[in-house]
Amino acid sequence: MLVQKYVDMLSQKSVIRTLSEFATARGKEIGYENVFDYTLGNPSVPVPDSVNETMIQLLRTKSSMEVHGYSPSLGITSVREKIAASLNKRFDMNYTADHIFMASGAAGALAHAFRLVTQPGDEVITFAPFFPEYHPYVDLTGAVLKVVPANVEDFQINFEAFTEMINEKTMAVLINTPNNPSGVVYSSKTLERLAQILTDKSKEYGHIIYLISDEPYREIVFTGVESPYVSKYYANTISCYSFSKSLSLPGERIGYVAVNPACEDAKKMVVMCGQISRGIGHNCPASLSQLAVAENLDVTADISVYETNKNLLYRELKELGFTCVEPGGTFYIFPKALEEDAKVFCEKALKYDLVLVPADSFGCPGYFRMSYCIDTEKVERSLEAIRKFVKENY
Amino acid sequence: MLVQKYVDMLSQKSVIRTLSEFATARGKEIGYENVFDYTLGNPSVPVPDSVNETMIQLLRTKSSMEVHGYSPSLGITSVREKIAASLNKRFDMNYTADHIFMASGAAGALAHAFRLVTQPGDEVITFAPFFPEYHPYVDLTGAVLKVVPANVEDFQINFEAFTEMINEKTMAVLINTPNNPSGVVYSSKTLERLAQILTDKSKEYGHIIYLISDEPYREIVFTGVESPYVSKYYANTISCYSFSKSLSLPGERIGYVAVNPACEDAKKMVVMCGQISRGIGHNCPASLSQLAVAENLDVTADISVYETNKNLLYRELKELGFTCVEPGGTFYIFPKALEEDAKVFCEKALKYDLVLVPADSFGCPGYFRMSYCIDTEKVERSLEAIRKFVKENY
Repeated sequence: MLVQKYVDMLSQKSVIRTLSEFATARGKEIGYENVFDYTLGNPSVPVPDSVNETMIQLLRTKSSMEVHGYSPSLGITSVREKIAASLNKRFDMNYTADHIFMASGAAGALAHAFRLVTQPGDEVITFAPFFPEYHPYVDLTGAVLKVVPANVEDFQINFEAFTEMINEKTMAVLINTPNNPSGVVYSSKTLERLAQILTDKSKEYGHIIYLISDEPYREIVFTGVESPYVSKYYANTISCYSFSKSLSLPGERIGYVAVNPACEDAKKMVVMCGQISRGIGHNCPASLSQLAVAENLDVTADISVYETNKNLLYRELKELGFTCVEPGGTFYIFPKALEEDAKVFCEKALKYDLVLVPADSFGCPGYFRMSYCIDTEKVERSLEAIRKFVKENY
Repeated sequence: MLVQKYVDMLSQKSVIRTLSEFATARGKEIGYENVFDYTLGNPSVPVPDSVNETMIQLLRTKSSMEVHGYSPSLGITSVREKIAASLNKRFDMNYTADHIFMASGAAGALAHAFRLVTQPGDEVITFAPFFPEYHPYVDLTGAVLKVVPANVEDFQINFEAFTEMINEKTMAVLINTPNNPSGVVYSSKTLERLAQILTDKSKEYGHIIYLISDEPYREIVFTGVESPYVSKYYANTISCYSFSKSLSLPGERIGYVAVNPACEDAKKMVVMCGQISRGIGHNCPASLSQLAVAENLDVTADISVYETNKNLLYRELKELGFTCVEPGGTFYIFPKALEEDAKVFCEKALKYDLVLVPADSFGCPGYFRMSYCIDTEKVERSLEAIRKFVKENY
């Protein structure tokens, strides 16, 4: 018998994917360049040339065993060393290779983090608006994801609702800053307050509440915005990183878990990740990708495009009267719809070939997300469509 | 609190890994070329040049999005189509892309297969001798792995013990042919009899018993040996393949699940795999690797080395009086130790810098495994050490 919970999931089609498929289909009718597809977080800027050149160099000069051989189960040691050194230099931390576990993207990293510290029935708290995949990521482990309602003022944390929700079953708190979908970066003040609550509640409940920090957008921060390194604020932090966005190589599936050295049993947690892998069929990222990113830790793809796009969209949306918090990073913007039901709003936008994503599944009804990791030229052309849509409907 | 089951696993160190570490340490003392390290199944022959050339070509000529962009969650469609066509041609099957799910090696493929058809408490039956990782692979899903004792005559299936063990809780049977560690290939007769029992018992219990076929050694078959394609014998077969061994690229983590088109709900099972991935942080293999193997489905690394090595070892072991079934494929040989306790036997061999793996963890006490995916020159030099070891001790 096929396992019913997965059969059931087949009928719950992701809104993002449905809209993305609509955009592709519409593109076949009128030319994809004429569809203003703001659905997917698929980086549009190319991978830095140095990454491709490193890969070619590895393929040309290294032995087959070095490039294509098994990676040790925690990752290639030299790669883990380089990542630790890079984090230490940038964020004044004191990681060693023993605190780093190589994972297949942030999804792989999170899969290990949840299994390290939660058992079926335990609770993980996250904050709206949030990446909808957190639900299957957590719920399919047997733990339960609980969502704190959004602080729509500035999309920092709604601490009042959080302190009401946290309880003895809370084993981990999951944050994502810079945030998908709001684009907001959590401030030092937010992180300090969060850390204080976690410290107090850990003591009160007699068990550590871990902070799981999902950081795929860490490098995509706009001019003048301070983006604090989460792990500096709370010792029991498990950072989950992906190179997908910063290096524009989401298809290579490479990231890592970095456990704060001040976390109790930090090194043990990393070797435990190697055991967790055995149960979920996970293996290290491709050796070739590991070796290639290790030589490119100080570069990023040309992510300045995202800031240009953000400026264009933010200015236009504000001029049109949208309520919208200015993104501090990522390639998302998260305005309030011009009518109560964002699904209806986004449905109407489709007539203008504007493909926007209603935010109900992000835990924030009434809002919508635009992923502007697309060409600036297309963003510019879309502004007229946005103006027309708003003027004719609101 | 850290999850205890993973903490507990840390103390159960793999015998293979411990011995492999011994070999490496000993190599530092006397030169690794003087250690006859028969521990690991890490392919020694290089990847075919055409794979590296395809990768370089892709990196040089394709857009960043094509090479490094997100793969669809079931795998790149063109890659799945090519794999289906190749299987159809070679094994006279009728797969389409809809029957293929790209996975990160056989471990990733098996992780999906178990979750498709078993729930916690269900039983999966496998046959000794077996790959010890099957225990964490199955047990950590919540299902239970049960092991049928070996048929030591020829390492085909012990059907008597199997029919005693199968019961209403059996949801899947897991086989591995060509087999790690015995090197034996299951015959048509074995597969026919197995299929008949599964058909009869499925009817008797009122639910399908799936056959999960782990096939990383499918291409490594020696002269004159017939290696039947498992899925042809039983409709409800889920084949789990890896390119690790055939193309010598275990570090790239690429393989697939192929569901027999005649399996009830075959296509649904493939899309279910995409849902299972969301819960285990699995994503598709690297896009670059997917595209590269798709152009190299008809080539293998120079696996003839393994047959040369097998011939040398088999002849020598038989001459020395070992009980040993001749391997039909893989790069393993599985002789009976010359004393009852294979651990003691292997311990004594270490004095001759012969690193052999006792087979207790393979479910076959009294035997040992040699992985001969090493240079032929080293195999030749090891023969003298084997002779000396046997003569001085037995």
